[in-house]
Amino acid sequence: MDKEKYALGVDIGGTNIKLGIVSETGDIIFSTMLPTNREDGPDEVMFQLKKGIKETISQNELDIIGIGIGAAGSVSSEKGTVSNPPNIPGWGVVNVVDIIKKEFNLPICIDNDANAAAIGEMLYGAGKEFNSFALVTLGTGVGGGLILNRKIYQGDFGAAGEIGHISIDYNGRLCNCGSKGCVEAYVGNHYLVDIVKEELPEHQDSIILKLINNNTDLLTPKIICEAAVDGDEYALFVIERTGFYVGSALSSVGNLLDIDTFIIGGGVSAFGQPLLNSIRKTLKDKVLKTLKHRIKVYPAQLKNEAGIVGSSSLIFYNS
Amino acid sequence: MDKEKYALGVDIGGTNIKLGIVSETGDIIFSTMLPTNREDGPDEVMFQLKKGIKETISQNELDIIGIGIGAAGSVSSEKGTVSNPPNIPGWGVVNVVDIIKKEFNLPICIDNDANAAAIGEMLYGAGKEFNSFALVTLGTGVGGGLILNRKIYQGDFGAAGEIGHISIDYNGRLCNCGSKGCVEAYVGNHYLVDIVKEELPEHQDSIILKLINNNTDLLTPKIICEAAVDGDEYALFVIERTGFYVGSALSSVGNLLDIDTFIIGGGVSAFGQPLLNSIRKTLKDKVLKTLKHRIKVYPAQLKNEAGIVGSSSLIFYNS
Repeated sequence: MDKEKYALGVDIGGTNIKLGIVSETGDIIFSTMLPTNREDGPDEVMFQLKKGIKETISQNELDIIGIGIGAAGSVSSEKGTVSNPPNIPGWGVVNVVDIIKKEFNLPICIDNDANAAAIGEMLYGAGKEFNSFALVTLGTGVGGGLILNRKIYQGDFGAAGEIGHISIDYNGRLCNCGSKGCVEAYVGNHYLVDIVKEELPEHQDSIILKLINNNTDLLTPKIICEAAVDGDEYALFVIERTGFYVGSALSSVGNLLDIDTFIIGGGVSAFGQPLLNSIRKTLKDKVLKTLKHRIKVYPAQLKNEAGIVGSSSLIFYNS
Repeated sequence: MDKEKYALGVDIGGTNIKLGIVSETGDIIFSTMLPTNREDGPDEVMFQLKKGIKETISQNELDIIGIGIGAAGSVSSEKGTVSNPPNIPGWGVVNVVDIIKKEFNLPICIDNDANAAAIGEMLYGAGKEFNSFALVTLGTGVGGGLILNRKIYQGDFGAAGEIGHISIDYNGRLCNCGSKGCVEAYVGNHYLVDIVKEELPEHQDSIILKLINNNTDLLTPKIICEAAVDGDEYALFVIERTGFYVGSALSSVGNLLDIDTFIIGGGVSAFGQPLLNSIRKTLKDKVLKTLKHRIKVYPAQLKNEAGIVGSSSLIFYNS
């Protein structure tokens, strides 16, 4: 029997750097995390990153074949750079691979966190059986990863998959990116919360108000979810509408790329079946006839561990 | 010196079947056409197609290495089928390659006409130098072809590239496909003419009214173009707005696929520089920061001959 292979997966988040050792079959053998310390600048973040890797390797006596790194923002897997991750302000452009390579004599792969999650879903999760699919992560931002013919599609400059910046209304809500009507401007955490805050005064009977003690500063997608579980009509409407917005963007993805399979992950996907049902219904309503009967919408299978497993899968995917 | 190679290119249009013999360098050596006779059903269309191929081969004593066929609608290059081309009502699903193969002992390639045009632009036209680009054909319908890494992207079932059915407004104009806000529902020939017809009463000073003798049944995109050339303000506004709609859809394509190069063809592209400028400006306004400075918008270089050259290029591309 071949000796089992392991990869070290790292997820550079805005709050924490998560690290883990993952087997070739996608099982997490060990995991840990340490604070990103983003407020202290990129040098400190890189210090923490190196410290985490060093500790993870020294605490485990396993045959690690490489280090896979996932990061938000524009990541060039070719050059090894991470440019202006939205969750680490003031970062600029850092060649993460060059810095890590100097200290660790291992193959290193890096990619956008959504791309890493898409590869993880392809190898170990909901995408195992599909030739092509789009992964969407619904969180603070709306990220995406495109698997086309069992390969991640990165684009000529590594920036492909920006599903969050598909516009669903050319004259719609202003997005952080400067454009209008990007789906992220409707369903990204802060935007979603802002919309609900605006609407709540018209929904005095909603449980949401009780759950937040009438203090809208306490409003989160999680609260909306709780209210929906309790049967709150307005919360259920918000979730259905969120699915409609996401489905509207994905219908353009489907028509453009002949993609019929969509995997939904990220924090907001905790809205669960009502969200998935609404995304599925919207897609079936909107895509071209040839695609309609093929539409499939699944929840991501890698949940909290998506970052670590996704990042480590970069090593197995590329080896 | 190698002997020059030739391919027979066929473009099955709604009105005419165009045929030509094209050299490996993209030069048309011979061309002809015959009526599609679509009103007499698919058997008659196939009869005309075979007749045209037979005559073209017999009239030329050239070493033809294959027959490339372009058709509207959903085309499976793998299976050889053309399904429900919108320009030939009542067609159903016909295996064009099987039928042609029986009579001609030559390799046969078939693809969607927009994909064929994209391959033609890649080999001989405005796309020669680019690794990835999107071709958009603005005509009765809005078609598209995606070149990713110098390869046509067909999708798992051959239906990729439907740029016309990217929605720019989830609650927008009803499209023929049943969805709302598809860019085709704003800039496809008939839709464009309908919008202008509706607006013309408010533009009594527009030259358009003079050009059509106040008979809106005579309105065509060509008339709008003529009026714009004469400096008509409303016509220029219509062209700019058309570019805005197209650019809005293409900004989603750019963000999703990290594509920075767009090649614009089809009849409506006769609107020329004012249209291209408006598409370019809209793209630069709307795409993500990383993409903005790379945006390039070019007119298609294969014009009237796009169908024949594009179809024949399928042979050289696949050989």
